[in-house]
Amino acid sequence: MKKHLKSALCVLALSCTSIVNAAEINLKLAHSWPKGFPIFGTSVDEYAQMVEELSDGRIAIKVDSRNKHKAAFGIFDFVKSGQYDIGQSASYYYGGKDPDTLFFTTMPFGMTALEQYAWFHEGGGLELANEVYAKHGIEVMTGGNTTMQMGGWFSKEINSVDDLQGLKMRIPGFGGKVMSGVGAVPTNIPAGELYQALERGTIDALEWVGPSLDLRMGFHKIAPYYYTGWHEPSTELMYFFNKKKMDSLPAWARSVLLNAAKLTGFNMTVQSQHESSINWATITSEYPNINVRDFPEDVIDALRASNTALLDAEKERSDIAKRIIESQASYLENARAWTAIGDQAYLNNIGK
Amino acid sequence: MKKHLKSALCVLALSCTSIVNAAEINLKLAHSWPKGFPIFGTSVDEYAQMVEELSDGRIAIKVDSRNKHKAAFGIFDFVKSGQYDIGQSASYYYGGKDPDTLFFTTMPFGMTALEQYAWFHEGGGLELANEVYAKHGIEVMTGGNTTMQMGGWFSKEINSVDDLQGLKMRIPGFGGKVMSGVGAVPTNIPAGELYQALERGTIDALEWVGPSLDLRMGFHKIAPYYYTGWHEPSTELMYFFNKKKMDSLPAWARSVLLNAAKLTGFNMTVQSQHESSINWATITSEYPNINVRDFPEDVIDALRASNTALLDAEKERSDIAKRIIESQASYLENARAWTAIGDQAYLNNIGK
Repeated sequence: MKKHLKSALCVLALSCTSIVNAAEINLKLAHSWPKGFPIFGTSVDEYAQMVEELSDGRIAIKVDSRNKHKAAFGIFDFVKSGQYDIGQSASYYYGGKDPDTLFFTTMPFGMTALEQYAWFHEGGGLELANEVYAKHGIEVMTGGNTTMQMGGWFSKEINSVDDLQGLKMRIPGFGGKVMSGVGAVPTNIPAGELYQALERGTIDALEWVGPSLDLRMGFHKIAPYYYTGWHEPSTELMYFFNKKKMDSLPAWARSVLLNAAKLTGFNMTVQSQHESSINWATITSEYPNINVRDFPEDVIDALRASNTALLDAEKERSDIAKRIIESQASYLENARAWTAIGDQAYLNNIGK
Repeated sequence: MKKHLKSALCVLALSCTSIVNAAEINLKLAHSWPKGFPIFGTSVDEYAQMVEELSDGRIAIKVDSRNKHKAAFGIFDFVKSGQYDIGQSASYYYGGKDPDTLFFTTMPFGMTALEQYAWFHEGGGLELANEVYAKHGIEVMTGGNTTMQMGGWFSKEINSVDDLQGLKMRIPGFGGKVMSGVGAVPTNIPAGELYQALERGTIDALEWVGPSLDLRMGFHKIAPYYYTGWHEPSTELMYFFNKKKMDSLPAWARSVLLNAAKLTGFNMTVQSQHESSINWATITSEYPNINVRDFPEDVIDALRASNTALLDAEKERSDIAKRIIESQASYLENARAWTAIGDQAYLNNIGK
């Protein structure tokens, strides 16, 4: 029974039993992270709370972390099947389910966070994502950005493409494929074993996120070189909604669920920016000898060529992949021209 | 009578008259812009609609543009007095009412949009703003960012500080004071007369916003030099709420009003980024000879010294001004160190 109907009945003294906390709409949400995982996971707890507040208790969301559902990369299937109504994860984890989901998280040499938000919300990006996900009965909304991801922690300096030959690096996903194309050997190792693998030389390098989440992993204690970013300039998480469920809801509830996802995502982006600032200050004060390096020009050129070759193959694979890649490329061209005379010119010209 | 109570009575067949559109909470909002003004004004219309949707019609907001209330810079007084419940404007317009409101829009040589959002929402900035505004019975929330504002349109090239001596420039607010400190002559001219003033040489230069709103003003047709930004790196609009009114509302309604303001603001920021991208593409395709220039180093140094002197005087003026300026300076130091190895390194190192 609707909470507000119950309230009214209560006022009319017909029935006053247990009217508090009885939501009209009860939903289940699964996310990819351990319970309480900083930023990515706590953001979802904030989402559930925001939805309850905005709806005056009419919508309740039960959040299951991966500690509960045991399937970090099962979110796509959970929501597709309706086992969960809502999911939060990263789109590019599901390339094995549908290769066209790859493009909606971040791309090497791609857009920065604000550029990509403009593509999603004003440049047709979200419509393309929903076109891909509609085939699976899923509706999506942006869910929070890490901001720039760093190129990673390296045991030795990279001075040329030669230094990448045979280099064992933890770098998953599309970035890993690009690295493979220039002679490196991408590997995947569970998060809990990464520190030891780097310390013992089982791997030569790894990328994780950026200072926001790298600090707690402790890589700065054992790797002297921290390379600037190229492969994930704006990693955006995603909320997934079971479309059949969403279509059954009244307009106000859909609005609450989608707008709260978008706002929680924005809040997560802002938190990522903040945590990276304060964590980078901590790293540099405790380990002042960390060497920040840009990859040299010939390495960037080789990585870009490898990336372009992979994207060209993707364009051949499906019509929609071609349309997405071309949409991103043409959007980026205009967006970057503006960034160049806007933020980039400001940062470079006013000095520190 | 509450809409949902009415609905329940209707279900009980006691009364079914006019239950649609009867909001429980009716609020009045005033903003600073002409009716339908792009981005700044349309964002407020989006806000009212979002609040109505999120609240399932329980909150209705009547929006008055300045065409109606006739007082572009009266928003602070409207909300303080309770004549309007909500306002949307820019904080720095109200330095004449309370000089401590100056700091909550953007500052010369200050934070970029994402850096400033982190300061507002994670670094104590919004708490400081609310401390200032509480004295006036007003509660505030971020309301949307223009992203980087350009340094302005100039009739002639600026090669040194000498070229600024006696230069007549439309540049209001704190940026104007900084310009005055290096020998320029800031003037204020109504928006509708700016084009003619620049064309006829009544003024030598002007700043407006950036490509997002500059295009429609047409300045690129008459000024050959477009200077990159320094004085307003992240102009944030603000929602004002009458605190007494807000405190009288239930928690869910407060949550809807504040979160919708924050989200509408984020949407406006994303739209500003988008409009600047596409408008800059239009300007450069139609007027390929526009010269984009950075101010030379000695000009930047002089402007920074002028800015620092003004801030030092502000710090002497009041304890809270001192606390705000120091909070912004220390936050910026960490935020910029992260931006330097994050977005800035990426943009500079990957090339276009």
